[in-house]
Amino acid sequence: MRLSRYFLPILKETPKEAEIVSHRLMLRAGMVRQQSAGIYSWLPLGLRVLRKIERIVEEEQARAGAVQLLMPTIQPADLWRESGRYDAYGKEMLRITDRHERDMLFGPTNEEMITDIFRSSVRSYKDLPLNLYHIQWKFRDEVRPRFGVMRGREFLMKDAYSFDIDKESARHAYNRMFVSYLRTFERMGLQAIPMKADTGPIGGDMSHEFIILASTGESEVFLDKALLDLDTPAADTDFFADLSPIVEAWTTPYAATDEMHDETAFGAIAEDRRVSARGIEVGHIFYFGTKYSDAMNAKVATSEGTEVPVHMGSYGIGVSRLLGALIEAHHDDDGIIWPASVAPFHVGLVNLKAGDALTDGACEDLYAKLEAAGIEVLYDDTDGRAGAKFATMDLIGLPFQVVGGPRGLKDGLFEVKDRATGEKEMLSPEATLNKLVAALTA
Amino acid sequence: MRLSRYFLPILKETPKEAEIVSHRLMLRAGMVRQQSAGIYSWLPLGLRVLRKIERIVEEEQARAGAVQLLMPTIQPADLWRESGRYDAYGKEMLRITDRHERDMLFGPTNEEMITDIFRSSVRSYKDLPLNLYHIQWKFRDEVRPRFGVMRGREFLMKDAYSFDIDKESARHAYNRMFVSYLRTFERMGLQAIPMKADTGPIGGDMSHEFIILASTGESEVFLDKALLDLDTPAADTDFFADLSPIVEAWTTPYAATDEMHDETAFGAIAEDRRVSARGIEVGHIFYFGTKYSDAMNAKVATSEGTEVPVHMGSYGIGVSRLLGALIEAHHDDDGIIWPASVAPFHVGLVNLKAGDALTDGACEDLYAKLEAAGIEVLYDDTDGRAGAKFATMDLIGLPFQVVGGPRGLKDGLFEVKDRATGEKEMLSPEATLNKLVAALTA
Repeated sequence: MRLSRYFLPILKETPKEAEIVSHRLMLRAGMVRQQSAGIYSWLPLGLRVLRKIERIVEEEQARAGAVQLLMPTIQPADLWRESGRYDAYGKEMLRITDRHERDMLFGPTNEEMITDIFRSSVRSYKDLPLNLYHIQWKFRDEVRPRFGVMRGREFLMKDAYSFDIDKESARHAYNRMFVSYLRTFERMGLQAIPMKADTGPIGGDMSHEFIILASTGESEVFLDKALLDLDTPAADTDFFADLSPIVEAWTTPYAATDEMHDETAFGAIAEDRRVSARGIEVGHIFYFGTKYSDAMNAKVATSEGTEVPVHMGSYGIGVSRLLGALIEAHHDDDGIIWPASVAPFHVGLVNLKAGDALTDGACEDLYAKLEAAGIEVLYDDTDGRAGAKFATMDLIGLPFQVVGGPRGLKDGLFEVKDRATGEKEMLSPEATLNKLVAALTA
Repeated sequence: MRLSRYFLPILKETPKEAEIVSHRLMLRAGMVRQQSAGIYSWLPLGLRVLRKIERIVEEEQARAGAVQLLMPTIQPADLWRESGRYDAYGKEMLRITDRHERDMLFGPTNEEMITDIFRSSVRSYKDLPLNLYHIQWKFRDEVRPRFGVMRGREFLMKDAYSFDIDKESARHAYNRMFVSYLRTFERMGLQAIPMKADTGPIGGDMSHEFIILASTGESEVFLDKALLDLDTPAADTDFFADLSPIVEAWTTPYAATDEMHDETAFGAIAEDRRVSARGIEVGHIFYFGTKYSDAMNAKVATSEGTEVPVHMGSYGIGVSRLLGALIEAHHDDDGIIWPASVAPFHVGLVNLKAGDALTDGACEDLYAKLEAAGIEVLYDDTDGRAGAKFATMDLIGLPFQVVGGPRGLKDGLFEVKDRATGEKEMLSPEATLNKLVAALTA
């Protein structure tokens, strides 16, 4: 993509309303624009990251056997009256009356609707297990939206729902999502730790929050260092085999959010393995049994022919929130440092003297070759000042910067900078291409 | 994808509420489910087609230089008060009051918001031309939603907005979208004819509807047969060169919707070239000058340093509507006949005797090889009746069906059926693979 034909409205000043670093950087880097409190437009650079996160989520959901559909944003109130949540939900629910005076709402979550879809078409244990998910915009009318996309009102969430014939099968379904989440966040360059969450009246041990570690995270977490050394399950993991050994390995060492923290248990860990850190919740998985299937009469026939309410779980990932979390985990004083898997572009190619025949020729040639090799390039072909160009590239945080200027190119060399390490080297066009292909393509 | 792990709720009976064939087939094929009047869930099969349509639209928008962003669904009413449309829009606008009693709305379109984004960051002619688009769910509270996704209330639309320094540049922007639309619909297997549309108070000749031809289309259209023989612009068309010869070639022969029809002009065409057909509107492009930039004070500096209101156009494609339109154009008595470019899967592989070692082995092996070759397969590995399996495959309309049964496989042969022509042949696994790779991969 040529910057001259792109839309990248960089802000020079730090916006005053932004209280945390990810919000500041997303505004400054022209990734989002606030349209009203807690409601954002995703500008081109931000949308590209959002889409990359979605693709990783989709791939890992599919690997774990979840099937994608898409429910609408607007829901009829009647479904929520059936579950009893319409009155219970309170002011966070955005309630709407349509032209025929019917009560509608902008969905804050989808347990009711998915249960309705399920009961309308699934009748038998033979159609189970089933896991249906979607990635859809939700609305929660927060009293005080803040922290940019980390706590917005209109936000993008992946929510999956599992359906099983009994609790034992539901545990397998739960484990599949558990393992899938470990892989999902790891692929984004995040260290995610599952931490036991409150199960409320349901009880049991099947509720975990996934917390990613970030020095500027929103809350304090406590964990056994052993968790930091565990290997993430491999891509060829058989999700339909018994996953409980993996889940056990990840849930046995101590890990707790501030809320669930037990100082005595933490104190029992060897001192050099006690880690207290800051974290951000990016996912939550939860088994809730027959709560909705009882209320909404979602039953299936067992192999013996009796009808039983289906066992359900729900599994959320905060897709738009992840952009903020990623930046909290990956930035420095100059800007964002994207992991390659979610970077809006892989490479920023900077032409230091647009209009100069030598520089233009070398840059255009390299641009074409990189793109042909499947590398996504943002090519700064504008005639701005060098200092401003470098600052922009550092700010938007593409993994590599390649700078072509008259001085280096006189000797046939580009400067290649690794954004994360800051290391620079002068390389020929061929060496530049080879280095980037090796670093960025699998 | 194994059917045993998929979610494909086929309806055996034709739903009574469905008045047109695409609505009937989408419901029967388990592509969508109505959640309330004019509001649908996109079930897995339907979502796959929706995503394929989106990808084609995105690729062709990018080729024409449009840059993708994503505006939110919920908009503040104040923006619409600025343009004067808040009161004018009427009951089709879904109006919402949030918890702080602020007036909001579910966007039916985005001229106001995109103008607001533009004016907040673009100042100079140097940043033009600019075309920003998004693909986002819209809501129009139709009095009587009908025809399934063809006239829903919550619907997916691609809307692009061009910004130019003067009318002459705006014409180039208009022509880029014009040519892009020809390519977009052609890639989906649709014959789209641009037809002059009403420009209202703006005047001029820069408004066209794109109508696709379908025997069961919603309205009557009239055209010169010459249009059916025109070549669609090639993929390597230079969108930044002068496109007016292409636009002229496509707008000179007679073509008109019922509304704009001129019997005298149509009568002047040689009789054997007069075509009257049925059509469906799937796109609309429109130059509206400074209507919004005047009202909302969106100005840019010219090269002489004076400030002028920016010239704008908008360019819509009914993405969710296209699913209905595609089915109206491509179906027979047995079901849908998807063009390969938008088919939910390329191939339906039917195992006629699940559980039989020979049949399972041959089908599993072919399934793995097809997937490895990049072909998307829906593998019916269930133990249903042969007749029902064939009927389902015809109904959902994948381009090819491959049937593995004990009789054929005893001689090492699959039956391969072309859904569109109905032709069948018995082929070895190797020949099946080769045939499908040749037919389905570019």
